[in-house]
Amino acid sequence: MKFFQKEIKLKARSRGFHIVTDEIEKHLQELQEINAGILQVFIKHTSAGITINENADPTVLEDFESHFNEMVPENMPYYKHTQEGPDDMPAHIKASLLGNSLQIPVTRGKLNLGTWQGIYLAEHRNNGGARKLVLSLYGV
Amino acid sequence: MKFFQKEIKLKARSRGFHIVTDEIEKHLQELQEINAGILQVFIKHTSAGITINENADPTVLEDFESHFNEMVPENMPYYKHTQEGPDDMPAHIKASLLGNSLQIPVTRGKLNLGTWQGIYLAEHRNNGGARKLVLSLYGV
Amino acid sequence: MKFFQKEIKLKARSRGFHIVTDEIEKHLQELQEINAGILQVFIKHTSAGITINENADPTVLEDFESHFNEMVPENMPYYKHTQEGPDDMPAHIKASLLGNSLQIPVTRGKLNLGTWQGIYLAEHRNNGGARKLVLSLYGV
Repeated sequence: MKFFQKEIKLKARSRGFHIVTDEIEKHLQELQEINAGILQVFIKHTSAGITINENADPTVLEDFESHFNEMVPENMPYYKHTQEGPDDMPAHIKASLLGNSLQIPVTRGKLNLGTWQGIYLAEHRNNGGARKLVLSLYGV
Repeated sequence: MKFFQKEIKLKARSRGFHIVTDEIEKHLQELQEINAGILQVFIKHTSAGITINENADPTVLEDFESHFNEMVPENMPYYKHTQEGPDDMPAHIKASLLGNSLQIPVTRGKLNLGTWQGIYLAEHRNNGGARKLVLSLYGV
Repeated sequence: MKFFQKEIKLKARSRGFHIVTDEIEKHLQELQEINAGILQVFIKHTSAGITINENADPTVLEDFESHFNEMVPENMPYYKHTQEGPDDMPAHIKASLLGNSLQIPVTRGKLNLGTWQGIYLAEHRNNGGARKLVLSLYGV
């Protein structure tokens, strides 16, 4: 059993959903050493999330942003945590709805994603900055 | 440390939530070789999800479907990704809300689920077809 | 590769979101044996969830509870699973939205969480009682 771990930083992105599969994979030259395993992607933040979804049509990314803003609106009258701006508390809730880690099977040296699957960074802040990920790769 | 991995196909199901624990376990004869470990279940699709919830009362499954349709309705005016039908974009969003992988502890050769826990396939398309899963099982 | 697994019980908490990082870590003296690895936290229940979010301002916890009650209200007319009380079916849905497992990287003997990240127990029942977790810790 092999175990690799590293911390990387994704470049800063605007608020919204972004495909980051390539940016993550370029840090994973160790993938070729794994015949069967798991890649874990962990985001070290509480106002951005990661998820896997459709990698082909850019309007899917836009519709995700529109609907997340509908499901978790800014300025709800019951929000008490408001001192970091109207985008902050919704960002926390959205981050937990998507979750902060992905586990992806690795098979014969490659991420074993479905044809239409890509890794999304969900940037929920207006100015989130660069986001730190911990990548853990293990298997045989 | 042992590591097993295989790809399986779940039979096609109607739109809604379905308990698939048994259909998954019948592919896992290797479970008995693991004293302490993890089963990872990964769904290779972007319009169906998997989750763990109540395994006893079938109305729970129906209420999940009703509420997911309420939280993520079809035909929202802001959807741009509409060419694959009104059930498609909501299916993508629902899939990410539930997530596309499960990690379940394995203890003394069995899934260490709580008494009331079962594995759900959440089929969000009207005609989703058979769904592919990657099962990764590892431990000592 | 080392693999540790144990079952623990969190003390009973009131309905709402609670930071439980310390209560979990005190069971993890084996952390110091792991240089690079993963901690998996699995909750064996279908009406409470676990997630990772902001560990500093208690009003974030309150806002989570308020918004989850807004997104998944009690007494929706379409709920059929009502015999265990009005808080039960929403609790099931909320639990699946957050998910029932966390995977956290372990680096040089410590949970590799971001500065502002803590582990939340999301208790969705009015009287949920003590909640059982399975902790699986593995790595090199």
